[in-house]
Amino acid sequence: MKIYCAKHGGFCFGVTRAIKTALDAAKEGKAVYSLGPLIHNRIAVEDLRKKGIITVDTIGEIKNKKVIIRSHGIHPDILKKLKKKNFEIIDATCPRVRRAQRYVEKLIKEGYYVIIVGEKDHPEVKGLLGYAGNKADIYSDQLKLKKRRVGVVPQTTLDIEHFNQVVSNLMGNVLEMKIYNTICHETILRIKEALHIAKKADLMIVVGGKNSANTTRLYQICKKYKRAYHIESVDEISPAWFADVKSIGITAGASTPNKQVQDVVKYLRKMFPK
Amino acid sequence: MKIYCAKHGGFCFGVTRAIKTALDAAKEGKAVYSLGPLIHNRIAVEDLRKKGIITVDTIGEIKNKKVIIRSHGIHPDILKKLKKKNFEIIDATCPRVRRAQRYVEKLIKEGYYVIIVGEKDHPEVKGLLGYAGNKADIYSDQLKLKKRRVGVVPQTTLDIEHFNQVVSNLMGNVLEMKIYNTICHETILRIKEALHIAKKADLMIVVGGKNSANTTRLYQICKKYKRAYHIESVDEISPAWFADVKSIGITAGASTPNKQVQDVVKYLRKMFPK
Repeated sequence: MKIYCAKHGGFCFGVTRAIKTALDAAKEGKAVYSLGPLIHNRIAVEDLRKKGIITVDTIGEIKNKKVIIRSHGIHPDILKKLKKKNFEIIDATCPRVRRAQRYVEKLIKEGYYVIIVGEKDHPEVKGLLGYAGNKADIYSDQLKLKKRRVGVVPQTTLDIEHFNQVVSNLMGNVLEMKIYNTICHETILRIKEALHIAKKADLMIVVGGKNSANTTRLYQICKKYKRAYHIESVDEISPAWFADVKSIGITAGASTPNKQVQDVVKYLRKMFPK
Repeated sequence: MKIYCAKHGGFCFGVTRAIKTALDAAKEGKAVYSLGPLIHNRIAVEDLRKKGIITVDTIGEIKNKKVIIRSHGIHPDILKKLKKKNFEIIDATCPRVRRAQRYVEKLIKEGYYVIIVGEKDHPEVKGLLGYAGNKADIYSDQLKLKKRRVGVVPQTTLDIEHFNQVVSNLMGNVLEMKIYNTICHETILRIKEALHIAKKADLMIVVGGKNSANTTRLYQICKKYKRAYHIESVDEISPAWFADVKSIGITAGASTPNKQVQDVVKYLRKMFPK
């Protein structure tokens, strides 16, 4: 069995940085609270909990006023609230997300009607919307353009092909469009490599949290080309998948610990020793 | 025989306006000189010549200092030269082209690296390049981007699908892209309707000058879907084209006089009375 494992799968720069920041802060002894999971990976979050990084849903649940801002960033209103209440704030916003937030702010100041392209319930998108003073719209096929002068910012983990399609859809109805292409370079490499592997392998396995938007998207892209499975761990792998299969491709989302990917590789290598 | 004739083919707003302006000016008795053909249609230009609108290639050939600027606009350096020499200038630049020129100027002032999307030898594109102080680049597949902050302006008669493809090609390599979508609404309607007809007719006839860029493009778009012919006049029509043909689609470029289109319709109606 030939196994192709993506080099550009697994933890991205922003996630690696956020975890390191959280662990460093937790080493001081006091628990660190995260509003929502620090990363969208159930197993990794459970592991972090053991190391003093606690996931909560609301500010009220934070017992020691020590809070970390996730790599996805945060809505500025929540940030203000935390500051007002004198919380100790550890900011692990990915610098690439921070840059997107600044661009959204800038476009609003310049009078553009701002459109954010991404998942409307994703924390990054909610944060971007906040930096637009909640005046932006999230792109959807049903969106009715309000103005002919439009500013466009994509979620950092968006598929660039999807983004190009959105820009094309908008083009016929705009006179001026100012785009900040904030799609992270790692996202582009990850999807490009996944597509490359999906084209040559007989079957694709995408490793990562079922609650991870970018992993789910990676899975959807792969399954356009080949039979594909989105798994969180090796327990979900079924030997029945591999009948008539001569090669397997493996990739992972930006929030998937490298260990989880390596576990899958090892498991498959054991199943197919050569 | 079913004949579908496009409503959105033939003289566009800018061309109609330029011809009216030229004829009005010629009525005063003095010949009006045009640097290059007033429109890209051999037959119409010959007709205009009889009415006192003379095509020349260089300023030196203008005998009475009376010159018309074509709907495509002109390079600002040539305009300056004409003004310096005290020419009587009749400006028939299409207002939609003039708008594109102003956007190019604005993007240069704002420090963008400007890319013009269109035919490099087209007078409109040459004019736009002039308004960029000759600092812009014309898009080509081989273009190496110089900066990550890019301003993009298309030729007013560009196919929007082609423009979207160019924007997509650029996207992966830019951080900021400011687009002025100067594609004329009539262009969009013309191409959209031609495509609609090409899909249902058995054969397409595209009427207009062989030297007309937008007519040639219209022909190329049609022939992606059906057998198509680009003709300047009915003399080129061959009965052999219509074996096994039950329906014919007819469209025309922005520089095609409506009479030429109607001549084709009449000719075919005579050939196929029902």
